[in-house]
Amino acid sequence: MKTDSNKNIIQLFKHNNDSATVTKVADDFDLVRGGMLSELNIAYETWGSLNKDKSNVVVIFTGLSASSHVASSSVDQTPGWWEAVVGHDKAINTKDHYVICINTLGSCFGSTSPVSINKKTNEPYRLTFPELTVEDMANASSLLLEKIGIDSIKVLIGPSLGGMKALAFSILHSTVVKNLILISSATQALPYAIALRSLQREVIRKDPLWNNGFYSYKKPPLNGVRIARKIGMTSYRSASEWTQRFGRKKSDDNKLNQNTFGIENTSFEFEIESYLEHQAVKFQDIFDANCYLYLSRAMDWFDVAKHGESTLDAISKTKIDKALVLGVTTDVLFPSQQQKEIAELLSLSNTIVEYQELDCIQGHDSFLVDTNRFSKEIENFIKSL
Amino acid sequence: MKTDSNKNIIQLFKHNNDSATVTKVADDFDLVRGGMLSELNIAYETWGSLNKDKSNVVVIFTGLSASSHVASSSVDQTPGWWEAVVGHDKAINTKDHYVICINTLGSCFGSTSPVSINKKTNEPYRLTFPELTVEDMANASSLLLEKIGIDSIKVLIGPSLGGMKALAFSILHSTVVKNLILISSATQALPYAIALRSLQREVIRKDPLWNNGFYSYKKPPLNGVRIARKIGMTSYRSASEWTQRFGRKKSDDNKLNQNTFGIENTSFEFEIESYLEHQAVKFQDIFDANCYLYLSRAMDWFDVAKHGESTLDAISKTKIDKALVLGVTTDVLFPSQQQKEIAELLSLSNTIVEYQELDCIQGHDSFLVDTNRFSKEIENFIKSL
Repeated sequence: MKTDSNKNIIQLFKHNNDSATVTKVADDFDLVRGGMLSELNIAYETWGSLNKDKSNVVVIFTGLSASSHVASSSVDQTPGWWEAVVGHDKAINTKDHYVICINTLGSCFGSTSPVSINKKTNEPYRLTFPELTVEDMANASSLLLEKIGIDSIKVLIGPSLGGMKALAFSILHSTVVKNLILISSATQALPYAIALRSLQREVIRKDPLWNNGFYSYKKPPLNGVRIARKIGMTSYRSASEWTQRFGRKKSDDNKLNQNTFGIENTSFEFEIESYLEHQAVKFQDIFDANCYLYLSRAMDWFDVAKHGESTLDAISKTKIDKALVLGVTTDVLFPSQQQKEIAELLSLSNTIVEYQELDCIQGHDSFLVDTNRFSKEIENFIKSL
Repeated sequence: MKTDSNKNIIQLFKHNNDSATVTKVADDFDLVRGGMLSELNIAYETWGSLNKDKSNVVVIFTGLSASSHVASSSVDQTPGWWEAVVGHDKAINTKDHYVICINTLGSCFGSTSPVSINKKTNEPYRLTFPELTVEDMANASSLLLEKIGIDSIKVLIGPSLGGMKALAFSILHSTVVKNLILISSATQALPYAIALRSLQREVIRKDPLWNNGFYSYKKPPLNGVRIARKIGMTSYRSASEWTQRFGRKKSDDNKLNQNTFGIENTSFEFEIESYLEHQAVKFQDIFDANCYLYLSRAMDWFDVAKHGESTLDAISKTKIDKALVLGVTTDVLFPSQQQKEIAELLSLSNTIVEYQELDCIQGHDSFLVDTNRFSKEIENFIKSL
């Protein structure tokens, strides 16, 4: 990680994304709900080259748990989280475009967050981190873009939480965004999604090791984070995918003495259980518990309607030329009904909108899995601009 | 509770259903996966009168968390869990029928379970309770019916886990069941349902107070049970019901200092969160953690196909004259696809089948909420016999 402030990031977790650039974008950053960060650092990565008139910028906002490493690069050849979609001659073509992926304010992958050192106390912020909203994330990204001299985005892309940030950014910094791609996003959090996130936060907070946020970074509340991740995963995929993929198959590591539920048992009988465990263990080792709480709560708080007299009034503050809105039929967390609503609202706000409801089987996470289908839609849209 | 063995049931929880009769139905009860109970007690309640030729018997098998108190009675006038459906001149008409509701083997509402005293040790079974399956529950119910002199069931009704038990009963004791009503049930547990139940068990097992099953009955693992219940509830109702009912409404008890996630905070910002908390607290106070683990795992293990060379072969061992199969479009836990499958299999097994997919908005729990709709279907079916 190239950084002028890397001492400000707790390094005890495997949190950091070594290929990201971390830049100080503000000294005093005021947050929307009050509170202030005395130093704001944002981590980001870029691919391709900025053209002369700076008209080829594609900005990617990430979901809850992703770093800025959206694709491999000469600096870091490990595959990124959207490797199939971003790159040379791929849907988001880095041959033609200057692609910037920005790590969320509040995320533990390089940007200022609850694991960062508060300069005033020389201790990590933990729960003294100010209340964080999606709007703060958008504003921090705006400061980064200013800092690196970008005042116009050809295409702003956001999946999931990234889409919420992209909507907030398009309202708050409307002159910057020309075109928009929103994937499985929402104008506001609905109660089923709030319930699942609230439960995840409760599980973390009830882990005795969490210790009111003052856990040891060497012995963090892994049970809480792991179980939270599993709860999340029940809404990231779809029941039908799991029926097709796992059915009632038994796990390879089914060494469980079936008569005991003892806590020392870490093997699972069914393959679906091992799958969840495996994915969640990977996550517990890289994601900070307090960061997770802040990002999760910010999603619950998000409601575009706060920016106007109604949701439509708020959306009408955007100045998007063209938008592509993609939803997935099997998404239960950000249901396609919400995508259709976004498309209709943008359309009523003088944006040319293309709306596609894809019948992918992988639920909310389809954009990460069914990348062929998403690539096709994204590529066609960008080529049409 | 009228019982010849009430000293054998732990009374420290508010577990017991005072209007139930608890009867010893076996001295040595062998379980399907091995293990033996040295005394088998089953709790049940009845309504109406048995006619001379014993041809008016309706048996109700319950879901995971219900007691045998399906309706009020002269003995116990408190409303039952299906008060709107069972009673004088109601869909399950106790004027014409002798209705028997049986508490599940393994449940903490009176039948032998992990909270019962093991006569051999004079201690509660806890995790020394043998491995429990849906088939054991069916067999225990069969012994109860024998004990009270019932050898023919006019209508066997089971919602949810009750439907699984009813299917197992109809295969294992096929000559006893004439007609069958299955509501939001399944021939086998599918991975999404397994995932949610596995997570619930993990949350209970990870509660430090659970203590490998040896918790104090005065200080049980309430956090684990409460959070498990909330996880369950995300699949018992539907996202669309919650959007309609709660939207983004704030909770009345929203006294939360929003900047702290502290564990001492027990108030919730959104109404959906308070609703879940309220329902789950009610549950934590009446349901035993170990019983929950055993019942939950039994559901994961259930697969009718074990009783034959295929699911169809197994179902063809039933001898049902007529069946009513009811599913709900918004049920994500026991999806309507599974109801349709049951209907088709029964139909292929020489049963006259009526199948209805109801478009209730309340998901899996619709049978408890949209009782008008269910009453109509059940009443018409029973009248047609």
